[in-house]
Amino acid sequence: MRFAFVGGKAGPWRVLSVTAVRGASLTPVTHLDLYPVAAGKLSPCGEWQLEGLISNLRYATRSEVANLKAAQEGLGRPAARRAALIPIKKSREWWSLAQDERRAIFEETSHHTAIGLTYLPAVARQLYHSRDIGQPFDFLTWFEYPPEHAEAFEDLVARLRATEEWAYVEREVDLRLERR
Amino acid sequence: MRFAFVGGKAGPWRVLSVTAVRGASLTPVTHLDLYPVAAGKLSPCGEWQLEGLISNLRYATRSEVANLKAAQEGLGRPAARRAALIPIKKSREWWSLAQDERRAIFEETSHHTAIGLTYLPAVARQLYHSRDIGQPFDFLTWFEYPPEHAEAFEDLVARLRATEEWAYVEREVDLRLERR
Repeated sequence: MRFAFVGGKAGPWRVLSVTAVRGASLTPVTHLDLYPVAAGKLSPCGEWQLEGLISNLRYATRSEVANLKAAQEGLGRPAARRAALIPIKKSREWWSLAQDERRAIFEETSHHTAIGLTYLPAVARQLYHSRDIGQPFDFLTWFEYPPEHAEAFEDLVARLRATEEWAYVEREVDLRLERR
Repeated sequence: MRFAFVGGKAGPWRVLSVTAVRGASLTPVTHLDLYPVAAGKLSPCGEWQLEGLISNLRYATRSEVANLKAAQEGLGRPAARRAALIPIKKSREWWSLAQDERRAIFEETSHHTAIGLTYLPAVARQLYHSRDIGQPFDFLTWFEYPPEHAEAFEDLVARLRATEEWAYVEREVDLRLERR
């Protein structure tokens, strides 16, 4: 399933900030919209559009999947009025690694899933894959959380950025959002 | 990078046979064409069109990647005048497995990469991923080989179909092709 995040002047999410964490930023916009991309349909107008695919998990083991399923909540919770869209591009070096090497960095060294688990169910998330469809980023990571967990979310992001995995991130933009 | 295989009346590859191995077949055609899909460009006409993305390897370890790289040859070799397009759809059960479970079936049990290695460099191949872009198949597997290796290729296909991994294949069509 293919989706597009459209940054512009309209959409349910109001943009609080656009920060270039590494590499070039995105044009600042005031609103963000998300919609499924259907062949032959026109896209809404916007300043920019980032597309991604929902796919299967690439690294999680059975026990990690079970832990995630037991703890996580879905998107769209009424209380989750804050969100973050964090598009990420990893380096050529990352993509030249084999599956076992990527897995070892992702989890055994960087504890990506284990860190994320700590913040469940407060922070709900969805990963969109963009690399294989010629997009400027490899991943669009999306998070939703209630405002009272904003500090916990900063914590989560800081812990991930301090991992070895993040040494392979060559571009990262961080958009913070809120809705009524 | 997104590509489309177009089955119809034109294209460099002449279709020798279209066989439904499991599940529904594809409409028989006489020729096959392959081209990159670009946004906004018209597709050539055909009876059907199957699209897929070239992506990174999902299961191979560093040593397996090294073995593949050392032994394989590229597509488009003048002597490789035979080809096979084998679109495959795996079951919901397969896709509900975690990464470690899929890896164990793919390689530790079914020896998918190890079997393929046996037929290098004679059989060159390219995998296209289709599941995440709403296609009828999950994968389009493409093989090219010189006519004198046709028997070896039948061997390769038979060995893969006898694996535990293939118990998760719920639809498979096998097109054989040749070019001048």
